[in-house]
Amino acid sequence: MKRKLAIVLASGGIDSCATIAYALQDYRVALLHVNYGQRTEKRELKAFNAIADFYGIKDRLVVDLIHLRLIGGSSLTDKVIPIPEEDTYKPSTYVPFRNANLLACAVSWAEVIGAEKIFYGAITQDAPGYPDCRKEFVRAFNDLIKVGTQKGNIEIIAPFIDWKKSDVIKKAVELGAPIHLTWSCYKNEDIACGKCPSCKRRLDAFREAGIEDPIPYECAK
Amino acid sequence: MKRKLAIVLASGGIDSCATIAYALQDYRVALLHVNYGQRTEKRELKAFNAIADFYGIKDRLVVDLIHLRLIGGSSLTDKVIPIPEEDTYKPSTYVPFRNANLLACAVSWAEVIGAEKIFYGAITQDAPGYPDCRKEFVRAFNDLIKVGTQKGNIEIIAPFIDWKKSDVIKKAVELGAPIHLTWSCYKNEDIACGKCPSCKRRLDAFREAGIEDPIPYECAK
Repeated sequence: MKRKLAIVLASGGIDSCATIAYALQDYRVALLHVNYGQRTEKRELKAFNAIADFYGIKDRLVVDLIHLRLIGGSSLTDKVIPIPEEDTYKPSTYVPFRNANLLACAVSWAEVIGAEKIFYGAITQDAPGYPDCRKEFVRAFNDLIKVGTQKGNIEIIAPFIDWKKSDVIKKAVELGAPIHLTWSCYKNEDIACGKCPSCKRRLDAFREAGIEDPIPYECAK
Repeated sequence: MKRKLAIVLASGGIDSCATIAYALQDYRVALLHVNYGQRTEKRELKAFNAIADFYGIKDRLVVDLIHLRLIGGSSLTDKVIPIPEEDTYKPSTYVPFRNANLLACAVSWAEVIGAEKIFYGAITQDAPGYPDCRKEFVRAFNDLIKVGTQKGNIEIIAPFIDWKKSDVIKKAVELGAPIHLTWSCYKNEDIACGKCPSCKRRLDAFREAGIEDPIPYECAK
């Protein structure tokens, strides 16, 4: 029997790379990548395409949600606000309601191509100040889909939402995901800075997992 | 005391024009207009700006959600699918999950500019086959905002969702809204066709309200 189709939201980072590997266990996969004016947009897109090529996934949609840059309010999209070196309770890297914009886009696509599952790799622990990376958010979005789409049969799945990032990395390695192709740095596009919150979380998680991060960094890992 | 700020989603159509007039009774208003590759995009934007100028509203955000065109699946955004002459239960003019995309964008903006209300002029009766024009959808979206934003204090208000379109037109006239500047036709950009589902609904509602529609039509009103 032909496998069912799922959409995976893929930034090009390590969590979404693991999510693709996870979804491919049971589904045919279509990939959605969103540019939203983030500083490292081009580098992320390169990582996204490299991962998609690795898996031979042809069904890709790359979308520009440039209004998130126009709207601003985040150091990820607004160059006036500096990228912090530490995470805080209300991080400046929070892009207002970003994941709702991304998921709305994914649901529109899912309705048209007939995908019944949408995977995204949010990890709550990884993003304590991001309200749209929590289980309650996923639950509320699924309720919205039930009443807001024609068939009401599309479901968001965030398989790692409760996991530790180190466990996601272990899973990625176990599934043979191409983690060497991923990009996480908020700041640089050539060699990862190793200092921004995203690099720090990634490096900490690799350390905790006891796995060597295969990508190069400016500073010692 | 300075009035609080609200965002109004404004297409340039008659319902959103009435919604602006309604919101202005109690709020300072910022206007959000979304292009999503609909056929009459330019004409709608012209109507939007004319209405905003009429009210002297400077705070405007015009956003391109071009992915809705890329994704297709609707006769409004996909020129291969013809605009029907009659509404059906599952109308081809339905743009998949469109209002969720629009509202997500509005919520992102509201978080940044500190607006606590977002008005949109959906009318259920007007759009029987559009799941994202129903009260349940607004309720579910408000639940999503509570868990998905940093303060959880933004609320979507659809003041006319239960109204008859003819009553919305009466209200617009009562509030002195510039209905002569609005545009509703799905098909044309110069003179309204008078035949597409949107023109028909509009003309029927004006007739029911006993008010003359001030815009010109190709065919007899």
